[in-house]
Amino acid sequence: MYKVVLDVMGGDFAPSSTLKGAELALKKFPELHLYLVGKESVLKSWEGRKRVSLYYTEEVVKMEESPKVALKRKKEASIFKGLELIKNGEAQAFVSAGNSGAIVGGAIFILGRLEGVRRPAIATLLPSLKDPFVLIDAGANVDSKPFDLFQFGVMGSIFLEKVCGRKNPKIALLSIGEETGKGNTLVKKAHQFFIESNLNYVGNIESRDIFLGDVDVVVCDGFIGNICLKLSEGLAEAILEMLKNEVKNSFIYLLGMKLAKGAIKSFRKKADWREHGGAPLLGVKGNVIIAHGRSDAVAIENAIRVAINSIKFNLVNRLENAIAKTVGVGEKE
Amino acid sequence: MYKVVLDVMGGDFAPSSTLKGAELALKKFPELHLYLVGKESVLKSWEGRKRVSLYYTEEVVKMEESPKVALKRKKEASIFKGLELIKNGEAQAFVSAGNSGAIVGGAIFILGRLEGVRRPAIATLLPSLKDPFVLIDAGANVDSKPFDLFQFGVMGSIFLEKVCGRKNPKIALLSIGEETGKGNTLVKKAHQFFIESNLNYVGNIESRDIFLGDVDVVVCDGFIGNICLKLSEGLAEAILEMLKNEVKNSFIYLLGMKLAKGAIKSFRKKADWREHGGAPLLGVKGNVIIAHGRSDAVAIENAIRVAINSIKFNLVNRLENAIAKTVGVGEKE
Repeated sequence: MYKVVLDVMGGDFAPSSTLKGAELALKKFPELHLYLVGKESVLKSWEGRKRVSLYYTEEVVKMEESPKVALKRKKEASIFKGLELIKNGEAQAFVSAGNSGAIVGGAIFILGRLEGVRRPAIATLLPSLKDPFVLIDAGANVDSKPFDLFQFGVMGSIFLEKVCGRKNPKIALLSIGEETGKGNTLVKKAHQFFIESNLNYVGNIESRDIFLGDVDVVVCDGFIGNICLKLSEGLAEAILEMLKNEVKNSFIYLLGMKLAKGAIKSFRKKADWREHGGAPLLGVKGNVIIAHGRSDAVAIENAIRVAINSIKFNLVNRLENAIAKTVGVGEKE
Repeated sequence: MYKVVLDVMGGDFAPSSTLKGAELALKKFPELHLYLVGKESVLKSWEGRKRVSLYYTEEVVKMEESPKVALKRKKEASIFKGLELIKNGEAQAFVSAGNSGAIVGGAIFILGRLEGVRRPAIATLLPSLKDPFVLIDAGANVDSKPFDLFQFGVMGSIFLEKVCGRKNPKIALLSIGEETGKGNTLVKKAHQFFIESNLNYVGNIESRDIFLGDVDVVVCDGFIGNICLKLSEGLAEAILEMLKNEVKNSFIYLLGMKLAKGAIKSFRKKADWREHGGAPLLGVKGNVIIAHGRSDAVAIENAIRVAINSIKFNLVNRLENAIAKTVGVGEKE
């Protein structure tokens, strides 16, 4: 059995999205046992269900709440209670579409970092013209140090290889020029750690090229990663909106777009963050999957799939072993 | 007469794109006098043309050449020779689609910075669902300091208001959360300079929202700005590519897309960097317009239009006055 905790209260459309996602996942994955954490009023009707355990709490961290304040004042909140179930060994993975700052802060505080990991990081899968690629860090950290970026590369590579089955993933540093030596101080110094390692490091990648799919792991500071992630979402939506507005102006265009609607729908599905499930927080002592705040039932189901695969492929142990090899390297920083 | 220098050798498609762009601009702007700088073999046939002066040089900075090395070894290159024409007062504005690092470096070295400006910055106009907005710095600097970001805001605002006619532009800091206090150290410190100023500063903006068009000037470090710029280009191309691939799979889709082609073409035009002309380098002693490396004739014409407007609206003097008011503020940094 794969024992996965789901924070039923987390997400813009929770609890209806999370409960529907739980239903989908229980149907799809026969070896799944779900640990649902949330308000009694929300979960009451689930009592007695097979492969489901319920944990009631009346506290919830709101989406826009300060993670620091929540950690101090809402110790019983669904996010923290759910993480406790991982800490005490009752379950093996945690999934939440809630306040991502609180998930990161809670995971570091409750589970702790893996031996040798300086900063846990969020690994997000993004679509490309070929296979999806990992962007790491997508927002767990700001003001990262060069050696942190190196560890992000190590962890992102392990995740993609061991959980997603990508062979020998190519790692690149996100920068403003392909040539070595182009970039800011952070990137130039991180480059040194990579070239001295035995990772499959291919140098810099420009943001223009990340969607071509030629690189598997794109490494950057979390401030930049988060900006890239949200820029991609915002731009994709703006482009489709602009296309719609163009089309309104002419009947023949409208007819054309109606016919092409199926293509656009199919494209949206491919480019959809929902299809790629949640983003794992790599570097803490436990499997923690952060789903998108706007997750619907399908996105929750996919995040649970990522959680199951993380358990199945022993992600935490593999990360620990890989990181152990880097210990000592960045001490001089 | 508006006296504009055009670096005929600069750009991926130069000199054919630049010469065609020069033709278009001369036709469009009757008060334009063009100073063309480039190889004699390229410009020879232009001898004797009205409203055109020719400056021959055999040296060219290649697109991927190191700007530092070029500045040392190719003093006669078209970029530097063109900037000299601004320096010695023969012409009033400089346009090039060449090596942007060499343009920035050359402009700072040859023209010098405006009194009080710590770091000149590139202001790029990007399309939104409403009016275009300015992203500054789009790549002139990496590792900016908080006060630099403040000056970028001052300069971007002046450019948009005085040259593009936007009334009382709204300025925001690009960050990873709308709330004050969200962001990295750089953004948090820059915020202090903005709230103590009398600029129309509206706080943080998330990258997801920049294309909505509610903010006029988006301020960030040049490393991040350049990544955002190229990410937008890369993603827009990837989305259209994915749409094309979807459409290939079905005849009815194909028919639909054929009909919608006009809409997509019209949309592309709107979202096209070519339509917005070149990006001015703000903060140097002269009007310097950096056109996109992939500029075609239309893009060159538009860059020349931006150059003419910069002269017409006295951009450099206005920037100098605005910056003078900030002098002393950031000295403690």
